[in-house]
Amino acid sequence: MTTPNADHAAGADERYARAALSFLAEPGDVALGTLLRSWTAAEVLEAMRSDLEFPYDGDPARASPAALTKAFDRMRALLPGLPTPGRIAAWEQEGYRLVCPGEPEWPTQLEDLGDARPVVLWVRGSADLRFACLRSVSVVGSRAATAYGTVVGTEIAADLAAKAVTVISGGAYGIDASAHRGALAAGGCTIAMLASGLSFGYPKGHCELFAEISQTGLLVSEHPPEQAPTRPGFLVRNRVIAALSRGTVIVEAALRSGALNTAKHARELNRLVMAVPGPVTSAQSAGCHGLIREWGAVCVTGASDVLELISPLGSEGMADQPRPAVTPDHLDPVTESVLRTLTGRTGRGPATIAMLAGVDLDTAFRCLGLLAAAGYAERCDQGWRARWNQATRDR
Amino acid sequence: MTTPNADHAAGADERYARAALSFLAEPGDVALGTLLRSWTAAEVLEAMRSDLEFPYDGDPARASPAALTKAFDRMRALLPGLPTPGRIAAWEQEGYRLVCPGEPEWPTQLEDLGDARPVVLWVRGSADLRFACLRSVSVVGSRAATAYGTVVGTEIAADLAAKAVTVISGGAYGIDASAHRGALAAGGCTIAMLASGLSFGYPKGHCELFAEISQTGLLVSEHPPEQAPTRPGFLVRNRVIAALSRGTVIVEAALRSGALNTAKHARELNRLVMAVPGPVTSAQSAGCHGLIREWGAVCVTGASDVLELISPLGSEGMADQPRPAVTPDHLDPVTESVLRTLTGRTGRGPATIAMLAGVDLDTAFRCLGLLAAAGYAERCDQGWRARWNQATRDR
Repeated sequence: MTTPNADHAAGADERYARAALSFLAEPGDVALGTLLRSWTAAEVLEAMRSDLEFPYDGDPARASPAALTKAFDRMRALLPGLPTPGRIAAWEQEGYRLVCPGEPEWPTQLEDLGDARPVVLWVRGSADLRFACLRSVSVVGSRAATAYGTVVGTEIAADLAAKAVTVISGGAYGIDASAHRGALAAGGCTIAMLASGLSFGYPKGHCELFAEISQTGLLVSEHPPEQAPTRPGFLVRNRVIAALSRGTVIVEAALRSGALNTAKHARELNRLVMAVPGPVTSAQSAGCHGLIREWGAVCVTGASDVLELISPLGSEGMADQPRPAVTPDHLDPVTESVLRTLTGRTGRGPATIAMLAGVDLDTAFRCLGLLAAAGYAERCDQGWRARWNQATRDR
Repeated sequence: MTTPNADHAAGADERYARAALSFLAEPGDVALGTLLRSWTAAEVLEAMRSDLEFPYDGDPARASPAALTKAFDRMRALLPGLPTPGRIAAWEQEGYRLVCPGEPEWPTQLEDLGDARPVVLWVRGSADLRFACLRSVSVVGSRAATAYGTVVGTEIAADLAAKAVTVISGGAYGIDASAHRGALAAGGCTIAMLASGLSFGYPKGHCELFAEISQTGLLVSEHPPEQAPTRPGFLVRNRVIAALSRGTVIVEAALRSGALNTAKHARELNRLVMAVPGPVTSAQSAGCHGLIREWGAVCVTGASDVLELISPLGSEGMADQPRPAVTPDHLDPVTESVLRTLTGRTGRGPATIAMLAGVDLDTAFRCLGLLAAAGYAERCDQGWRARWNQATRDR
């Protein structure tokens, strides 16, 4: 084995290994997460195949060696069904892209999840995950939403999206759907963090909604594309919804709603927990009122309250339109040369971009990722195009 | 002049002087309140009549000597219209009783108002003011209440009243009326603190409500019976609503509602400030949400939340039925002898009680006041009767 791994941009072997682990492991497995701090995913996969044992150096209070053995045994049983690297490459061709820790599109705030951070994310859609999450709020709530909750969820999401805030939710019926739809209606970016694989797309009734989201926003999952959801998977998924954003707004939640689980994760991650009040006569608002009274969640009545809370004083992050997160002066010369090849209207393929910039394809990809994360480039049907190119040229 | 006064049980002259000041002075006049810490009301009235000047020893930051002079001049102008002691005695005969600081029925928590405490209170109704306020909550809100607010106000008040909590409000249309009606419907005690005199009874449309309140609860005012309300008088009155109770619940309030003024007084007096959330789409709940978000008001959704907040852990104060505040062992022998003359069913007049107990009429009144404040006696149509007499005899 080589040096213990860090989150370097992963090579093909490592990317395949992480994709493989998304088939084998349960998301949020702390024992596996601990292991991946010391060893690469490829090493872990190899060990599983060859019956090697790892010296477990994690905190036994969080994940015991026994838990790791159990997880390993479960994963080993799934090894025979593992897709080939070719199949995974085919999925990537179909638009299900793998995003690994340390890659430009990886949202660094997921590190707050510690050993429970996702091993890998499957992403589909035109937005850049890291950039989209830079200014984002999670808007979640009951599946059994009332008309009131649906109206309020839609309105808050639309108003946030109109202020260039990405709306993250769970793709479920009820409040989640209202949040996604509100953001879409305002022409904004929205992310559906699913508990199923992306081509499985649970719930099935949201097939069209998911298709629409992937046009301008993102579908994200810890599971490989075709996987069905499991009951515990919904709760495990909520930690990612909470971690991706600056804060979570609970629009409607009954006293035992799963949305309260997202709020709990947000609180544990030191994210803002916000709740929308409602009629005290509505059971679907009782969970929100409990959050406000007993958890100290902030009572928010609209997007302006949310913006005030998530936007630090004097920050320009809440401008009406998205702006690049860094100025062009801070780009290295190679990345700048890649930026100069991008146009604002139609996109260019990576090979063309590499050729025009005079760099190799890997370098072009690395630079495009950086530019996307910084808000200068975005994916489109034809490949990549510039955003804010005009502003950049004006300087 | 004699010794500077304290709040001893006032003699006839002093009671008349305080009644007279309720005609002459504006409630909450800090300059006058300061003066009444050093001098009796009779001395102040005499000074006004004889153009005497008082050495002003109050804090000039709160009330300047100039303010006092101005208040004095305004009061002097009203002297010619002052009713005679006979007229005031006649009102008392009609059931409008004067309650002066230091008297048994005076609620001591009004001292928290400092120099802005009422000079005197006019009270009408069968309950004992001091005792009724021992376990009380103010429930106030918009006059322009919605159907939602009216339902919630009625329900919270009824549930509080059913737990032997006195519901205090301002007698206005909207939420105030719903609170009084809820308490009445539950057979509980409610207090309407009016901004007009009690026989004037503003608003006139609540004439029947006020009559019903006085049957089992209390009407209270700082103004003499026939006085009409003034616009600033409503806000000045709110400080008494806030001071009388352990906490104030705002059921509905628009962003500039007068109910927020009561909340402000409650906060300044270190009383609990509670607000009922509502639909974020309702302007009548916007003030409540503002209180929760910006003032740290507690979000309460029903009487159980309120009871939990106002009832210290292990306190028996929230029992289903009222209980005496002190045990009979703590009564002095004379008061105990008066208690023994009371029956639980029909009442007895004070003269009969005095005769049976072998004390003079003044002593009987003093003892009855103490017994009422402690929860052993209450007024009724025939005079006074015992409450909890059975429990007392069982010991």
